[in-house]
Amino acid sequence: MLDPLYKIISPKLGAQMYKWACDLYPICRSLSGKGVRETLHYFQDLLPTLTIHAIPSGTKAFDWEVPNEWNIREAWIADEYGNRIVDFSNNNLHIVGYSIPTDKVMELEELQEHLYSLPDQPDFIPYVTSYYVNRWGFCLAHTQRQKLKQGKYHVYIDSTLVPGHINYGELILPGETTDEILISTYICHPSMANNELSGPVVACAIAQWLSNLPSRKRRYTYRILFLVETIGSIIYLSHHLEYLRKHLKAGFVLTCVGDERDISYLPSRTGNTLADLVALHVLESYTERFTSYTFLDRGSDERQYCSPNVDLPVVSIMRSKYGTYPEYHTSGDNLSLITPSGLYGALRLYAAAISILERNDVYRVTVMGEPQLGKRGLYPTISTKESGAKVRDLMNVIAYCDGKADVLQLAKRINLPALRVLELMEPLISAGLLEKVE
Amino acid sequence: MLDPLYKIISPKLGAQMYKWACDLYPICRSLSGKGVRETLHYFQDLLPTLTIHAIPSGTKAFDWEVPNEWNIREAWIADEYGNRIVDFSNNNLHIVGYSIPTDKVMELEELQEHLYSLPDQPDFIPYVTSYYVNRWGFCLAHTQRQKLKQGKYHVYIDSTLVPGHINYGELILPGETTDEILISTYICHPSMANNELSGPVVACAIAQWLSNLPSRKRRYTYRILFLVETIGSIIYLSHHLEYLRKHLKAGFVLTCVGDERDISYLPSRTGNTLADLVALHVLESYTERFTSYTFLDRGSDERQYCSPNVDLPVVSIMRSKYGTYPEYHTSGDNLSLITPSGLYGALRLYAAAISILERNDVYRVTVMGEPQLGKRGLYPTISTKESGAKVRDLMNVIAYCDGKADVLQLAKRINLPALRVLELMEPLISAGLLEKVE
Amino acid sequence: MLDPLYKIISPKLGAQMYKWACDLYPICRSLSGKGVRETLHYFQDLLPTLTIHAIPSGTKAFDWEVPNEWNIREAWIADEYGNRIVDFSNNNLHIVGYSIPTDKVMELEELQEHLYSLPDQPDFIPYVTSYYVNRWGFCLAHTQRQKLKQGKYHVYIDSTLVPGHINYGELILPGETTDEILISTYICHPSMANNELSGPVVACAIAQWLSNLPSRKRRYTYRILFLVETIGSIIYLSHHLEYLRKHLKAGFVLTCVGDERDISYLPSRTGNTLADLVALHVLESYTERFTSYTFLDRGSDERQYCSPNVDLPVVSIMRSKYGTYPEYHTSGDNLSLITPSGLYGALRLYAAAISILERNDVYRVTVMGEPQLGKRGLYPTISTKESGAKVRDLMNVIAYCDGKADVLQLAKRINLPALRVLELMEPLISAGLLEKVE
Repeated sequence: MLDPLYKIISPKLGAQMYKWACDLYPICRSLSGKGVRETLHYFQDLLPTLTIHAIPSGTKAFDWEVPNEWNIREAWIADEYGNRIVDFSNNNLHIVGYSIPTDKVMELEELQEHLYSLPDQPDFIPYVTSYYVNRWGFCLAHTQRQKLKQGKYHVYIDSTLVPGHINYGELILPGETTDEILISTYICHPSMANNELSGPVVACAIAQWLSNLPSRKRRYTYRILFLVETIGSIIYLSHHLEYLRKHLKAGFVLTCVGDERDISYLPSRTGNTLADLVALHVLESYTERFTSYTFLDRGSDERQYCSPNVDLPVVSIMRSKYGTYPEYHTSGDNLSLITPSGLYGALRLYAAAISILERNDVYRVTVMGEPQLGKRGLYPTISTKESGAKVRDLMNVIAYCDGKADVLQLAKRINLPALRVLELMEPLISAGLLEKVE
Repeated sequence: MLDPLYKIISPKLGAQMYKWACDLYPICRSLSGKGVRETLHYFQDLLPTLTIHAIPSGTKAFDWEVPNEWNIREAWIADEYGNRIVDFSNNNLHIVGYSIPTDKVMELEELQEHLYSLPDQPDFIPYVTSYYVNRWGFCLAHTQRQKLKQGKYHVYIDSTLVPGHINYGELILPGETTDEILISTYICHPSMANNELSGPVVACAIAQWLSNLPSRKRRYTYRILFLVETIGSIIYLSHHLEYLRKHLKAGFVLTCVGDERDISYLPSRTGNTLADLVALHVLESYTERFTSYTFLDRGSDERQYCSPNVDLPVVSIMRSKYGTYPEYHTSGDNLSLITPSGLYGALRLYAAAISILERNDVYRVTVMGEPQLGKRGLYPTISTKESGAKVRDLMNVIAYCDGKADVLQLAKRINLPALRVLELMEPLISAGLLEKVE
Repeated sequence: MLDPLYKIISPKLGAQMYKWACDLYPICRSLSGKGVRETLHYFQDLLPTLTIHAIPSGTKAFDWEVPNEWNIREAWIADEYGNRIVDFSNNNLHIVGYSIPTDKVMELEELQEHLYSLPDQPDFIPYVTSYYVNRWGFCLAHTQRQKLKQGKYHVYIDSTLVPGHINYGELILPGETTDEILISTYICHPSMANNELSGPVVACAIAQWLSNLPSRKRRYTYRILFLVETIGSIIYLSHHLEYLRKHLKAGFVLTCVGDERDISYLPSRTGNTLADLVALHVLESYTERFTSYTFLDRGSDERQYCSPNVDLPVVSIMRSKYGTYPEYHTSGDNLSLITPSGLYGALRLYAAAISILERNDVYRVTVMGEPQLGKRGLYPTISTKESGAKVRDLMNVIAYCDGKADVLQLAKRINLPALRVLELMEPLISAGLLEKVE
């Protein structure tokens, strides 16, 4: 299983994913509305079996209620001379998400109460939303805001905030068993690249990779979700929690997987699930350096997946984590921040994690004492000063195949990457020296 | 319960405790006798429900037997000219504790066998006792000893060592439950300040603080003991061990809590009792720096409370620990060593520990996933780049209220002081989002 | 038991062991044959109850089969002029172990394929064997090899490789119980000193030391084995595994115990057996510095004793470990590498480990609270500033004799060598203050 799962991940996929991000970048996504549906249809073209679901406003989900659907056509601020000094059509971050319709002339002083800018990052437009309290507002660069003169301004917002739906995409790839691996990503942010478009495009590449395998080549069933953050995962959990509790073995929240500045790990709440073990192993084995955060640093849908009453085995492997890089949640988080290579690096780590999970079995050596490898052509038949070192890794695999450790535990004990352990195991399994413990 | 328990600890109590220490300093305490009773009566005036007990000489207690009662009226060494060169009336450390009556003229050479001084600390009078073997002796500064000339000396000790009693004081403050917290301190040392008067005066301040609360405001019953060291705690345990084993949840030996040079922690024998957990949490949360000792460094009544067959959950939070500061067990440990602020600092740490223990419950979040705090006014309704950080502590409390961790464990996991955790919990409990797990 | 077990280890034994190594050094040992039997008879003279066993070629043992017996009388390479330029009679490392009979003249080019030398250690003759595939070959210093001129060479090997036996020696010293301690060493290497003769001679000294005690002075039964490496321990385990699983409490592979350059520790596979605990304690208590290896660095018969299906509690305390010193498996590992003092140092560590195991009981203090040691003459009757420190170790022994910790665990908790703990316990046991927990 290993080769088809892992080795077909081509570096060319980096450019592919980057192109998808470019296509999706201009769309104005929010918690609900046409932008979300347009985004989901884009992925449906790439993943034909992706199902798009719609949950009506007012639906209860745990402690929450699905809000109205927001759509926006036009939004601007014009000065006394009719110049549109801030215009949503230039950058969809200019409008506070879920702004209510407005058409009003006002003095600068009144307008200021509806403006959002970042004094410490004066060139960036901030990203602001107000999903659950009715407001309107505009976001702009602080340098621009400081130049605003006294006078009258015309504010125009052509939006609707009325009962409708929240949407999400769901792709189920059945495997040999009903045990599941979850890939969850989100599609509710307007034009931003590392957080968020990197997440959906890497998730899509993983989904294509797994889809291209025949199902008997997948031990696990894969559940790949394109949600809106927070309310989306809460809705999803409110419908699927009991099933996931029974079947989910490991899950990953894909976000901030596009730049090249860092590699990060965010554990589950308990920190010791299978998802934690495989993620840490992959990061320790296949990166030179990574930043390890704690669950106290969480910020995406693991907040729901790992909440005390839910406690699913879900973690994140990221590039630069949300909240830690200066462009986060601003117009600076644009397509120049992410790269094909950054996306590909994240994809490879996830593919390694999945490839290991697919074969993370427990093996037992079938003979007492060390097997005689020489007669099977697996050990040098002449013993010199260095002959032992040549087969040390192989002998270590045998020494720890005790019917108790799974491949991840074994790899940790003998200080080898798990995929290398699996390679070393192959001739031993063929020779009947190792057998799987069910 | 939190506010009345913790916030009424006023800094003015520092001066109050220091005054008590000044009043008690001149009294000649020992293992038994009038000085002990006088000291206990002093505390009885401050704590009217304090009971004074008397155990007769000869009473067996575990491996020990209560010794005779010692009282002393006069003790001096006079030179050939009748000058009293060493006189108990000047400093009660001059006499070896439990010295037998003597009235004798002798040469310097013979006298030397009964003198105790400290060559390395030549200006201090050492503190020496001989409770269980009949002796007599005088303690003096080494500088003075070296000036003694050949000649005859008259030694006079007017003491009695006859069957009598060992005394102790016991104050029980009943609470909502019969679960108990123990405060144990000792009153057997003559004029010394950090070790020992700081202990009884801080214990007395804690007792007054707790007494002034109505009993329904105390979950725990408090047992506050003024004992003589070693034999006192052995006697006490020999009568109360079975009860304490059932009811004692945490206990503290109060000693060396008066100076400002250090803050110290001495764990229980096993090191993992509730008393250890709360003491370590308080020290880590509310001090800048403290010295952590091991049980191998023990030296007071935890030797009995934590002995292998007893193993009660008892620890010490101290200022400069016995044995570690130069003035220990000498006349240098006088009232200039302790300060109102030093005493108050220790009192605050103990009050914090008790306040946490009183509310160290296990809570569980009542909803699935994260609760929607915005609709309850507990979360910003507008989402900006920084809005999450503002409520991070609150969200972390929720994320770890899993029905398993108590407040101390929760505080440790989310790196907040337990009293701050309790503050954060209050609105969540009021909103019905957290419920106590019985 | 302590004194006879430990204190009779005299430093003179170092010279004794060194002499045995000198006697045994010239013998040409291999996996089988006369050299092994000669070596075993040498030890039988020293240990009269040593039994020599013979296992026929062709016998199956786990995954292995006993190979033919190899004996060699003569082996040389002669140049065109009849000069024997390489001659087994000069150094038995010159012949590749298990070389088949040969009598042939050939060109240098053909000869080269049968020569083994070490370019990086040009003055040393390497040690090479080919037990399981028929070959012939010679080992020589690389400097000599480089001087070989074109021309014809006469190769002559007078060896036999025919059905015979593999031999081993076994000595059982019965003790008070059938619980066992295993000492295993090997005797299959030709003339090399640290690896291997140091192992058998230290094992022999331990055996003599233990033999000289009456059996009622030994709690444990001792099983002392002189095997050939790998196939020897596999044969032995194939006959005795079930019994050892039930009775073996701790075992040691004795190898590389002769030089003075290092002290090393090789743990068992699981790393937490009684053998590990006692070895680590001895090394931490009685050496200034030692090198701690992991089971991944293994290389001798613990490979069999600790294999997954066997998992006996076996470790190694070594001087310079096989594979880590430059002379390893070459003619440089000769009698100048090992010293009486190096051998004696290893013997002392093993004797300490055994002495501790013999008395590694669990004790419980018989009184509640601290015992009154003063009345028993075990505590100063006068209390001064320093009196407590004088008896601190004694008090710590008492404080941790809780009926749960054995002597090794106790020693670790109170930071004292276990043999010192046993000394401190003696007067307490005599006074009835400690009792053994069965």
